Amino acid sequence: MAHDCAFLEDLDLADDQRSFAAGSRESHAADWGAERKGRGVVPDAVVWPESTADVSAVLAAATDHGVPVTPFAAGTGLEGTAVPAEKGISMDLTRMDDVLEYRPDDFQIDVGPGIIGADVDEYVADDGLFFPPLPSSGDISTIGGMIATDASGMGTVRYGEIADWVLGLEAVLADGTVIETGSRAIKTSSGYNLTEILIGSEGTLAVVTRATLELAGRPEQIRGGRAIFETLDDATEAVFDAVRTDLDVAKIEVVDGLSARMANAYTGSDLPDAPMVFLEFHANHGVDEEIDLCRTIFEDHDVLRFEMSADDDEMESLWRARRELAYAVTNYDPGLEPLQPGDVTVPISNYPEIVHEAKRLEDEHDVLVPCFGHAGDGNLHYSVLVDPDDPDHVERGEALYKEIVERAMAIGGTSTGEHGIGQGKREYLEAEHGPGAVDAMRRIKRALDPTGTLNPGKIFLE
Amino acid sequence: MAHDCAFLEDLDLADDQRSFAAGSRESHAADWGAERKGRGVVPDAVVWPESTADVSAVLAAATDHGVPVTPFAAGTGLEGTAVPAEKGISMDLTRMDDVLEYRPDDFQIDVGPGIIGADVDEYVADDGLFFPPLPSSGDISTIGGMIATDASGMGTVRYGEIADWVLGLEAVLADGTVIETGSRAIKTSSGYNLTEILIGSEGTLAVVTRATLELAGRPEQIRGGRAIFETLDDATEAVFDAVRTDLDVAKIEVVDGLSARMANAYTGSDLPDAPMVFLEFHANHGVDEEIDLCRTIFEDHDVLRFEMSADDDEMESLWRARRELAYAVTNYDPGLEPLQPGDVTVPISNYPEIVHEAKRLEDEHDVLVPCFGHAGDGNLHYSVLVDPDDPDHVERGEALYKEIVERAMAIGGTSTGEHGIGQGKREYLEAEHGPGAVDAMRRIKRALDPTGTLNPGKIFLE
Repeated sequence: MAHDCAFLEDLDLADDQRSFAAGSRESHAADWGAERKGRGVVPDAVVWPESTADVSAVLAAATDHGVPVTPFAAGTGLEGTAVPAEKGISMDLTRMDDVLEYRPDDFQIDVGPGIIGADVDEYVADDGLFFPPLPSSGDISTIGGMIATDASGMGTVRYGEIADWVLGLEAVLADGTVIETGSRAIKTSSGYNLTEILIGSEGTLAVVTRATLELAGRPEQIRGGRAIFETLDDATEAVFDAVRTDLDVAKIEVVDGLSARMANAYTGSDLPDAPMVFLEFHANHGVDEEIDLCRTIFEDHDVLRFEMSADDDEMESLWRARRELAYAVTNYDPGLEPLQPGDVTVPISNYPEIVHEAKRLEDEHDVLVPCFGHAGDGNLHYSVLVDPDDPDHVERGEALYKEIVERAMAIGGTSTGEHGIGQGKREYLEAEHGPGAVDAMRRIKRALDPTGTLNPGKIFLE
Repeated sequence: MAHDCAFLEDLDLADDQRSFAAGSRESHAADWGAERKGRGVVPDAVVWPESTADVSAVLAAATDHGVPVTPFAAGTGLEGTAVPAEKGISMDLTRMDDVLEYRPDDFQIDVGPGIIGADVDEYVADDGLFFPPLPSSGDISTIGGMIATDASGMGTVRYGEIADWVLGLEAVLADGTVIETGSRAIKTSSGYNLTEILIGSEGTLAVVTRATLELAGRPEQIRGGRAIFETLDDATEAVFDAVRTDLDVAKIEVVDGLSARMANAYTGSDLPDAPMVFLEFHANHGVDEEIDLCRTIFEDHDVLRFEMSADDDEMESLWRARRELAYAVTNYDPGLEPLQPGDVTVPISNYPEIVHEAKRLEDEHDVLVPCFGHAGDGNLHYSVLVDPDDPDHVERGEALYKEIVERAMAIGGTSTGEHGIGQGKREYLEAEHGPGAVDAMRRIKRALDPTGTLNPGKIFLE
């Protein structure tokens, strides 16, 4: 249903802060996961707020007029979180990308939601600091988007997720009320933790207009490398053993043989098409001892090759198959399309099982399922490649996708480790959390956004 | 106002699970911070649930009958969180103290809310694991109480607070609905973070009946010791420099000269009555290098003595003044009584300032204010010792107490770092968070507990 958004003309915004043009509207109707699914609708208008006051004015007016607002930024989401499920306004926050205050002595920085993750890292680099929880898309995704989905990435096994590095937020509720959450003190037990209820709420409760992030000191020693295994079970069980042994590793990524084959083809590498584990160690002390420990553990699982380096170029070269994987998968076979990239996370003791199950389903359904992921977190990423012209193949791919999610939940895992529910995972919410918890979430939604202005059609099934 | 709690007789509870006796009721009307304040009222009845079903039945019936329920456990709180502000039922959770499931391979344990913190540590010790965020009262406080206040402690500077180590909860809402929050996966971005909204909500939103805790591997090397400084400014600035330098320290506690004098008198020590910093280092690698770095930093601040040890008994001896401090303060002068133990937390760069200000106010008001605390977190603990028979002295003490809290908030800090708001800090809530955020908290309270059954009179002013 189209909404009359003419009221945007009456707000105190510059002409280039609103658009009703088809091009603008269409460019705000897709994300990285939306291509095949045909998710969402084209908004009626796009606004580009440049201040908290702009956000507040637009939200208050939209709520008054009963017009839905879908927050948008880089558009790199996978589950359709920022793609409108209902028409109305797309609120593009990419112009609010300033560093607002930097307090290096406190390891803190205040930023606008539209700032790119890597720009935060660059801003603080001269002081030997960094923002540890950036996802792999950190050089194109915004901090606001990461907060919306409680994103995480390769470094999460050592450093945690976005939520662990956000001290406080400024945010605007649907009625235009500006709230501040959290504290610049690194701990507080004052009142309800509004910061954490907003993180991961996918823009359904409030629009974040400022985030206070914690930073960390860059480790003095970094080593990176790669291990190659004969079987995928060897690789996943080696990772489990490493985590169980409390190995201090900063990144530990599994890539299955199929993904290795795709990466080798894409990069022209002569590596074997065998399961690989990509590693990075960060430490101020004892990095060599941890690498030795890792090698010993991996040898117990018949590792074929174990190569590590302290040289930046060499590390990059060892990691190349992992870095290029997303492109390699997409370009592997022009006749196949990724149905939907997915991610699930399970307790680490069940990681070998979920990966094994994904590959078993690949055989059973005769659908290619390249598997990789942040193994140290128990996080499995997978693509399902189908022939779009073969409805039966597509159907088998969709069934397989669903079976992996359900299997992950059945063994104590979550339907989405780091991409949010958005539109793509709504059907799993109640199975994962139970009706009582989902009802509690709905009550919170109604309490903070009684008119349902903010990002309707996300997280909850109607 | 007394409430008719006779309906408890109709519930499926054993006789020893409810009491209307004065002794039971009175023992549930105080906590460690309540002595002088005369906070709270005596409940009409006490119930001891032994299962989630018991909690659910009592809450559902209490809500039906319009009777308030105040959750209670060890009674070690400082802000009156577990002391009834309204009569009704005190729900004592200490019998729900079981280990429900232990998954050492996943570094996870499920426990009842009534389990004592140290008992968790003991349970997992044989596997080389521990629960890192225990507060100093961990050997007498319950996990449920720690979750209620988002407690933290000496180890927070390295390991974080309770919230960082809780993966999920089972909890009962006021209407008796049982919900499960979080996931056994160590990360999830599925739905709203109900776990974190319950942690620190002081039993006003739900009663926690099970907690899934994360564990950590015990560090291979532990060193402990003590540094003595000439001035308190030297000590606090040394701590700030250490934190700013990213020193990997597991505990770093400041004790002012007055507290040192009290501790020395209490323990019969011949140490100087000088400001001290107590340290503990945990690491698998490089602990000696970190200690050397710390010593160098402290020498820049004219440290007088710097003593470290790897021997358990010797460490204990070096730390004795800190360990005995609570008793030393209470026993220092029989003519003085602690008005109220307080804690505030500020950004680490403002730690020297808040401590300096506390001592300045001590002089200005001529009231003894022993200062100590988890300095690495920017956390200041202080007692205000007053002559209870001198109303003017009491009044000056109360003014001083308030001035420290307000000063902490003015420089970016929080009114309560680790003890919660309870009844004691309610007046600061709105000043700290602003009216918009407090209104959002109230909306969440009404959404989850529309009848106001759970722990009324806490966190919010009427």
